[in-house]
Amino acid sequence: MKAIDDDYYMTLALDMAERALGQTETNPVVGAVVVKEGTLVGLGTHLQRGTPHAEVHALNMAGSQAEGSTVYVTLEPCSHHGLTPPCAERLVLEKVARVVIACEDPNPLVAGKGIELLRTAGIEVKVGVLRDRALKLNRRFIKFITSGLPYVTIKSASTLDGKLASRSGDSKWISNEKAREIVHTMRHRHQAIMVGVSTIVADNPQLSTRLTVPGLSPVRVIADSTLRIPETAQILHDGIAPTWIVTTEQADPDKAERLTELGVEILRCGSGPQVDLNEALVQLGQRGISSVLVEGGGRLNGSLLERQLVDEIVIFFAPKIVGGSEAPGSFSFAGFDLMRDAVSLRDMEVEQIGDNVCIRGIPVWAQAEVREEDH
Amino acid sequence: MKAIDDDYYMTLALDMAERALGQTETNPVVGAVVVKEGTLVGLGTHLQRGTPHAEVHALNMAGSQAEGSTVYVTLEPCSHHGLTPPCAERLVLEKVARVVIACEDPNPLVAGKGIELLRTAGIEVKVGVLRDRALKLNRRFIKFITSGLPYVTIKSASTLDGKLASRSGDSKWISNEKAREIVHTMRHRHQAIMVGVSTIVADNPQLSTRLTVPGLSPVRVIADSTLRIPETAQILHDGIAPTWIVTTEQADPDKAERLTELGVEILRCGSGPQVDLNEALVQLGQRGISSVLVEGGGRLNGSLLERQLVDEIVIFFAPKIVGGSEAPGSFSFAGFDLMRDAVSLRDMEVEQIGDNVCIRGIPVWAQAEVREEDH
Repeated sequence: MKAIDDDYYMTLALDMAERALGQTETNPVVGAVVVKEGTLVGLGTHLQRGTPHAEVHALNMAGSQAEGSTVYVTLEPCSHHGLTPPCAERLVLEKVARVVIACEDPNPLVAGKGIELLRTAGIEVKVGVLRDRALKLNRRFIKFITSGLPYVTIKSASTLDGKLASRSGDSKWISNEKAREIVHTMRHRHQAIMVGVSTIVADNPQLSTRLTVPGLSPVRVIADSTLRIPETAQILHDGIAPTWIVTTEQADPDKAERLTELGVEILRCGSGPQVDLNEALVQLGQRGISSVLVEGGGRLNGSLLERQLVDEIVIFFAPKIVGGSEAPGSFSFAGFDLMRDAVSLRDMEVEQIGDNVCIRGIPVWAQAEVREEDH
Repeated sequence: MKAIDDDYYMTLALDMAERALGQTETNPVVGAVVVKEGTLVGLGTHLQRGTPHAEVHALNMAGSQAEGSTVYVTLEPCSHHGLTPPCAERLVLEKVARVVIACEDPNPLVAGKGIELLRTAGIEVKVGVLRDRALKLNRRFIKFITSGLPYVTIKSASTLDGKLASRSGDSKWISNEKAREIVHTMRHRHQAIMVGVSTIVADNPQLSTRLTVPGLSPVRVIADSTLRIPETAQILHDGIAPTWIVTTEQADPDKAERLTELGVEILRCGSGPQVDLNEALVQLGQRGISSVLVEGGGRLNGSLLERQLVDEIVIFFAPKIVGGSEAPGSFSFAGFDLMRDAVSLRDMEVEQIGDNVCIRGIPVWAQAEVREEDH
């Protein structure tokens, strides 16, 4: 049994925040718990962008019990007038005695000002309780709020010899059912899902979120430099979620018009023969996409990796060896001459999922490091 | 704390047996513990082929205490006159009261006869305590004693995209230090280590066992269809362990003679352009090699896999993505058209070793299964 302490209440606040992952758009997920004289008196979580913050829900629930209470909140309370009034001011107004915060808000509009405001008002503030978990929970938000670019996660399912299909293109199935459920959970938690047009041509996928309970389907983004997507592709007609195509200035305007008539948004990214992936991410960010789940194929994965545009990599390994030098690999790009220049993963997590193994980590760019050392 | 029971003493017997892995040649590893009236009175382990069995050491240590005792032994006591007298008879002679056995001896010369002999003599016999661990411990012995062929384990170290070197052939280093220590532990536990000649040409390796304590170096077997091994290769000169080359009838007799003069044994396996790997394993078995650790490269791994000659696969994944379609993969072979025909692994074990992940399992041949269903 866990002792009751600050971690105990903060864990609940984080658990509540986690359940809202995927529904707050570009906003962070935040949970708040109000405790007065050993009694839980309020709790809340931020549900949707433009609606009340977690603290507001929790303080509303606490009512007059808020005075003299301790408020646990997973992210520094905001100090600025955004879509809603500043939470730090509300906490002062309610005369709470103590605020426990998991992590500072990386939003440059807040960044310590919320904490300062509370302290100036005489409220006791403790910062850093379960900070690592809180930072990880909002890693997508943090990237977006500090750079304007979406957080990019590559998800790949491959055999133990690194293939995502056989030499004839067969890929059904690599992952087991449980692993596929986790993929649908990941989709729910991202604002956009991105694939190369080859995946559409080969599999005609739905790219929707299918769970045992209702989930949210992200915007479907297709990288298609020459607009060769078949006009019969189901994602152009099923209306499950918006479909956007990132292409180039060169792409056929007639085809673009026909696709637009089908309700597709066309984003022109660069004037070269290939989609400028950096520009694509900039435009996705400008449209309020803070997180992108890339589901291949190998060429899109490889191109993003080569351009150092990837924030996280999640690979599901199936216990299979399929062979074939022409069978497509999970990361198709020119590659490095030296093993020490390979992209490596830090903060690796390994999870066995039945007979599948999920390996996830954060890419570290060896060449970037070398460059820094040169200075 | 673990309760004292049959498992408790059998665990010690298995722990002792395990420590002798690698030093008993084609014999199994066996441990024995003698307990009398709640007191440990004897223990022993089989050390080397041709020397006393585990039970004999343990009974010698127990002396007159053996009478009326319980003897725990990890493998059914032998009933035949081999290089040493039968242990079952010795147990009867010592008038032990009870014998607890982890698993039956798969050796057709024993196979239940030892147990029968004990029971006929009025000794209480219990079979199957920690059987799975005991069977796993002697899986190499079991394959050899029942088929005459060595147990073949492929060990590979690869990047997350399935490459065992970069496009330029660089492979230093993929695995971390701890994973390399485990590989040396595996070498100690095998009678032979096998590589393709390309590995010798590329890396000029020592292929010896290097641990923080002294270890046993296995026989080094090189698959070299055309005898293109450089005569300067260090394994031809260092004398650390015997070096054998498996080649074909076609290979240059002059080169073969020069290699023989260097102390190398040449095994001619098949008259085709490539080494007949099945024949190579037969010849290795005939020479008393009961276990082979295959350490690549990708072509040797792939050829063995294609011919269904592999009993176990151990892959160390390093958290790297090196890319390059021409970079060598860990299993180079023609491959399968359909994912469902891929070789799959059963009894998978996953272990995180620092930032490396070790996945091991037993290959299952999909096509073989289909064939069986056809009958």
